[in-house]
Amino acid sequence: MQTYESILVDRDGPVGVVTLNRPEVLNAWDWLMSAEMNHAFGVFDDDDTVRAIVLTGAGRAFCAGAGLLPAGRTFDGSLTRDQAQARYPDSEGRQADRLRTPVIAAINGAAVGAGITMTLRTDIRFVAADAKLGFVFNRRGVIPDADLLWSLPRLVGYARAMDLLLTGRIFTGAEAAEAGLASRALPAGEVLAAAMTAAHDIADNVAPVSAAITKLVARRFLEETDRQAALELERRLFRWAGQHADAPEGVNAFREKRTPRWTLSKTRDFPAELLDEAR
Amino acid sequence: MQTYESILVDRDGPVGVVTLNRPEVLNAWDWLMSAEMNHAFGVFDDDDTVRAIVLTGAGRAFCAGAGLLPAGRTFDGSLTRDQAQARYPDSEGRQADRLRTPVIAAINGAAVGAGITMTLRTDIRFVAADAKLGFVFNRRGVIPDADLLWSLPRLVGYARAMDLLLTGRIFTGAEAAEAGLASRALPAGEVLAAAMTAAHDIADNVAPVSAAITKLVARRFLEETDRQAALELERRLFRWAGQHADAPEGVNAFREKRTPRWTLSKTRDFPAELLDEAR
Amino acid sequence: MQTYESILVDRDGPVGVVTLNRPEVLNAWDWLMSAEMNHAFGVFDDDDTVRAIVLTGAGRAFCAGAGLLPAGRTFDGSLTRDQAQARYPDSEGRQADRLRTPVIAAINGAAVGAGITMTLRTDIRFVAADAKLGFVFNRRGVIPDADLLWSLPRLVGYARAMDLLLTGRIFTGAEAAEAGLASRALPAGEVLAAAMTAAHDIADNVAPVSAAITKLVARRFLEETDRQAALELERRLFRWAGQHADAPEGVNAFREKRTPRWTLSKTRDFPAELLDEAR
Repeated sequence: MQTYESILVDRDGPVGVVTLNRPEVLNAWDWLMSAEMNHAFGVFDDDDTVRAIVLTGAGRAFCAGAGLLPAGRTFDGSLTRDQAQARYPDSEGRQADRLRTPVIAAINGAAVGAGITMTLRTDIRFVAADAKLGFVFNRRGVIPDADLLWSLPRLVGYARAMDLLLTGRIFTGAEAAEAGLASRALPAGEVLAAAMTAAHDIADNVAPVSAAITKLVARRFLEETDRQAALELERRLFRWAGQHADAPEGVNAFREKRTPRWTLSKTRDFPAELLDEAR
Repeated sequence: MQTYESILVDRDGPVGVVTLNRPEVLNAWDWLMSAEMNHAFGVFDDDDTVRAIVLTGAGRAFCAGAGLLPAGRTFDGSLTRDQAQARYPDSEGRQADRLRTPVIAAINGAAVGAGITMTLRTDIRFVAADAKLGFVFNRRGVIPDADLLWSLPRLVGYARAMDLLLTGRIFTGAEAAEAGLASRALPAGEVLAAAMTAAHDIADNVAPVSAAITKLVARRFLEETDRQAALELERRLFRWAGQHADAPEGVNAFREKRTPRWTLSKTRDFPAELLDEAR
Repeated sequence: MQTYESILVDRDGPVGVVTLNRPEVLNAWDWLMSAEMNHAFGVFDDDDTVRAIVLTGAGRAFCAGAGLLPAGRTFDGSLTRDQAQARYPDSEGRQADRLRTPVIAAINGAAVGAGITMTLRTDIRFVAADAKLGFVFNRRGVIPDADLLWSLPRLVGYARAMDLLLTGRIFTGAEAAEAGLASRALPAGEVLAAAMTAAHDIADNVAPVSAAITKLVARRFLEETDRQAALELERRLFRWAGQHADAPEGVNAFREKRTPRWTLSKTRDFPAELLDEAR
């Protein structure tokens, strides 16, 4: 398995694990870490034996963000965005929400600025109940990054999003779970184990192509205003899925109370043409 | 009152009740049940004496969905979609969210797959706290049905929706209430009674045409991106409502601490032209 | 400081306070109060020394709405909409969500109809846990006012919004906090103090221009369906912010564990051209 400077990658059977690994600086975000993370995501996503991915941080923090930096610059000695992307050209477009593979964030500790923002692209967040979280941008004299002002209101509703984005206040993992931003808040020491259990559950029980369609279509539908068009695309994809081997296998496995043996491949059998045609 | 094969219909004063009634198969969904349910909804919706509708299930489950079936097929001996719709041609377009009449789902027990999906078209959900719920499609080798990938993120936010849709995991009625998917979680034996109480409250106190406008306009506004256009339509409808008899009656009844006597009819006085004109 | 008939205005250092002040009628809303409130907002918003605004009510209620009135009419002896706006022509377009300054609603008691609707335009709501709240329109024979049918589903999700709007039922501040409509529910006697503390925290720590951009861009993005366009605008604004003095000051203050000294002005340095250009 490839080695990186800022992250560790590992496998636990069908689950790929990406660990932000600069604990001496609370896994502070920089462009190299970003490119390495997306590259590792891409490698896992292109591998049919990887059925789920977990993203976590080494040490007591998840990711301290880039908040200590003057805006537009990276850590001393670190790479610029262009330099990082040149080193990992395959990392482009491999953010967690663009993969076909489910990604769970195991937010084991503090996550602020870019540190929490990156988890919004994962599909599911588990968080330490006492973790300090914050979209701290407005307290650093900049503004919310990436497309936070667009996406956070859609993730948790405009009311909760505005409070968090406008004030940049620190909030806990427990509040994140109440707000729906995280699916579960747990004692810090149990977050990674719970995320691994959930990832193995997905790996064992969720059809890989069903997961891929769900991820990419739900992401597209954030921008879709025509409900009838959405309904028609979903019906076509439902029929497509129903005509393939995973559908009877799913029903039979459920009836026989056993783990399904999926045969469709997320890399070969994903109905990209159907999606493109409907665009 | 008409009789059906898969459902029971009943009246309790101004409240119409539709009960999924195949308890021997946990009220499993099929096309006949769907057509019968929508037909019954339509009959109630066309009746000015029906001011609210409750949808529930007979026995210990609400609806087991169609999850035991190979995709695209129906239960042995049951009807195809076309056959069911041919038997109830009036059922088309009478889904709960297209009615003028408020619909409350009393989810008395398990609701999975199509069983929970159908409740998303009702206006309000009460649920048994220990009921097992699940959008289980991805575990059966198919994908989320109907327009779930479009609508669930708008109902409860994208973060919570992605967790539930992607994993297809079973969750409880208590979690549904925390997520905002259900308005209330109650002991199983109290769900129907609470829904009936809420339905009678609507029947007694909510102006029928106000409810009809609220339902149809809010549904349309899910697809409306122009806030100013929304504001202008709502203002026109507000003025329309303010010029009719129910507005002073509403205020007078409130002042006199009595139940209002509404005179506008949801079937005759609904301002469809105003909505069509604004489209 | 200007005096008004229906409201009080006050300053507590960098925090402006607007108090609805007709306690003898539970601060009932009318057009004069609306025009005065928006005028006071505008004066505070045009003043660079005002960094945050709190809106609250005098006495035991926040605002009883206009629910006791026949629709389309105002209180006996009160002004019509045109008369009120003619008296305060500067109040147009100065609703809380159109300001550059953060606004916190301290909902100290009952807020129904127009009383709660007005708080949806503030950025953050703190509420008395036992306050009676209600979008009561459908119980008065009218319909939800302003753009409630469009905006409430976006604030808290369609599921919760439909319950509250359709039924017009009374709910408590505690439920509002669970639903995400309010950020905090508190004992009634602590609501204003908590809101003042939060306002002073914003005043001391949030860069004024960062807050202004967050407010106006997030508001615009409610209507933006093109995520890529949103991302590009946010990146341009992020770069703009990063090139100005507040960005290094924010980082330096954080490093030095001191309160930042912002230099950008919300009135002079707001990048309106950048926003207009992107429109």
